[in-house]
Amino acid sequence: MLKAYCKEKAALIDQTLAELMPAGAAIAPVVIEAMRYSLFAGGKRLRPVLLMAAADAVGGRGDRYLNVACGIEMIHTYSLIHDDLPAMDNDDYRRGKPTNHKVYGEGLAILAGDALLTAAFEIMLRQENAPPETVIRVVHEIGFAAGPHGMVGGQAIDLASEGKTINIDTIALMHQAKTGALFKAAIRAGAMLANATAGQVAALTKYAEHFGLAFQITDDILDVVGSQDKIGKPVGSDVRNQKATYVSIYSLETARQMAEQAVGQAMEALREFGEEARVLREMVTYLITRDS
Amino acid sequence: MLKAYCKEKAALIDQTLAELMPAGAAIAPVVIEAMRYSLFAGGKRLRPVLLMAAADAVGGRGDRYLNVACGIEMIHTYSLIHDDLPAMDNDDYRRGKPTNHKVYGEGLAILAGDALLTAAFEIMLRQENAPPETVIRVVHEIGFAAGPHGMVGGQAIDLASEGKTINIDTIALMHQAKTGALFKAAIRAGAMLANATAGQVAALTKYAEHFGLAFQITDDILDVVGSQDKIGKPVGSDVRNQKATYVSIYSLETARQMAEQAVGQAMEALREFGEEARVLREMVTYLITRDS
Repeated sequence: MLKAYCKEKAALIDQTLAELMPAGAAIAPVVIEAMRYSLFAGGKRLRPVLLMAAADAVGGRGDRYLNVACGIEMIHTYSLIHDDLPAMDNDDYRRGKPTNHKVYGEGLAILAGDALLTAAFEIMLRQENAPPETVIRVVHEIGFAAGPHGMVGGQAIDLASEGKTINIDTIALMHQAKTGALFKAAIRAGAMLANATAGQVAALTKYAEHFGLAFQITDDILDVVGSQDKIGKPVGSDVRNQKATYVSIYSLETARQMAEQAVGQAMEALREFGEEARVLREMVTYLITRDS
Repeated sequence: MLKAYCKEKAALIDQTLAELMPAGAAIAPVVIEAMRYSLFAGGKRLRPVLLMAAADAVGGRGDRYLNVACGIEMIHTYSLIHDDLPAMDNDDYRRGKPTNHKVYGEGLAILAGDALLTAAFEIMLRQENAPPETVIRVVHEIGFAAGPHGMVGGQAIDLASEGKTINIDTIALMHQAKTGALFKAAIRAGAMLANATAGQVAALTKYAEHFGLAFQITDDILDVVGSQDKIGKPVGSDVRNQKATYVSIYSLETARQMAEQAVGQAMEALREFGEEARVLREMVTYLITRDS
């Protein structure tokens, strides 16, 4: 069930992104090409699918909010391009393919990231099917989540922590900002666009927080026990880069227990929801069993 | 008169930017510090002042739209930080001070730019004193102007042109995209926020286009005849970098005539406006006499 839902929604996102990013007719076609390269590099479209599933969960229709959903995926993609740069994580591969700067050079990779981030806002602000006040509120919140108090701030903590011993509180804050904030904004956006009640938004916010934590812990676990073929990048990179993770600070076993606990709390947050929240339930459960 | 107006409005922008960018209480204070470093490096606040002057010109009050005005200045600032990076123009000085990456390192400079761009949208979407539909329309247009079909596209043309002979059409397109688009968006934003008529917006759009051209030509002239003390960076850098400019393609004399013609056309576009457009008239006239 979950697989079919995700496949269908991801296809919808891919199609909409392709329409929003025309191949030609640009003043600088190579920037569009570099944007497309990373945008269609095999991402799972997790954030837009979560947005759509959240809209579904409150009785709305996720496929009516594709502009905001695509914008969030573009913000996620820009952050990967910039994170991979030599001045940041200096990664050569991402999802089994050479990273953007390896193909287009550093200058264009920086510009492709800048262009994706800017175009994301432009595209989100063309969202229809919701009152303008709601569009402003939602896009504003996404902007806050992606900025210096969210994603960029988290990346800065990551950058400053390289080769240092950092404690679990700093790690938790870093992940919350770097990854969790955008998950939360995506889920809240879906709910708010679909006109959720304040109670529904509050419950889905809790779900999102536990989802983000479970995602991060299982990500750390995968870096230790995963397969390079499935993840698309060398495993064990956290250990080599001396990165503190949930596995390195606790143990593989404790990290697994923590992930299961987070999944349980996410499920608990959905207590008041009926069958409409099925996909959200399956998505967080899937995190524990995922292999990529 | 112009000097007093610009000084007063620039002070207002500085003050609002300072309020919007708190010094402490951030999850990654060093990012905020790097943002502030470039944001308060002595910029003339030309774009926000143009926005305010355009609002004044249609009978509105420019100081009611400080969020959008500050957002545009933040977008401009991010573009300077990224343009100066080693992978781009590789500049060590900007406005007489070391560039952002020279002080904070490349990784943080990339992040400070990303943070300024993201926070710009977040701040613009908190604009009050205008209907939500207008805020969406204006911020959307600014996003389009700053993206791959505007500023980022222009920078990509610039990057691709390095060390090559490019023709005047390409140069004009590059400047239009890299600098002109954001000038135009700023001026149109001021007019639209202040509830201008369609005719007023059309006239100010023409003004903006000629303003942008005059700005670029006089910028090229300054690189040849200007003083390093006043511009804040070494003069003659265009010649050294083999950059095609209005001066190198035509001549100093022809470039001056072209600038004067553009100023004349900008003035002509303001024909129907009264005394309220005084500042806009003075601003474009000033371009010809400026020494920095």
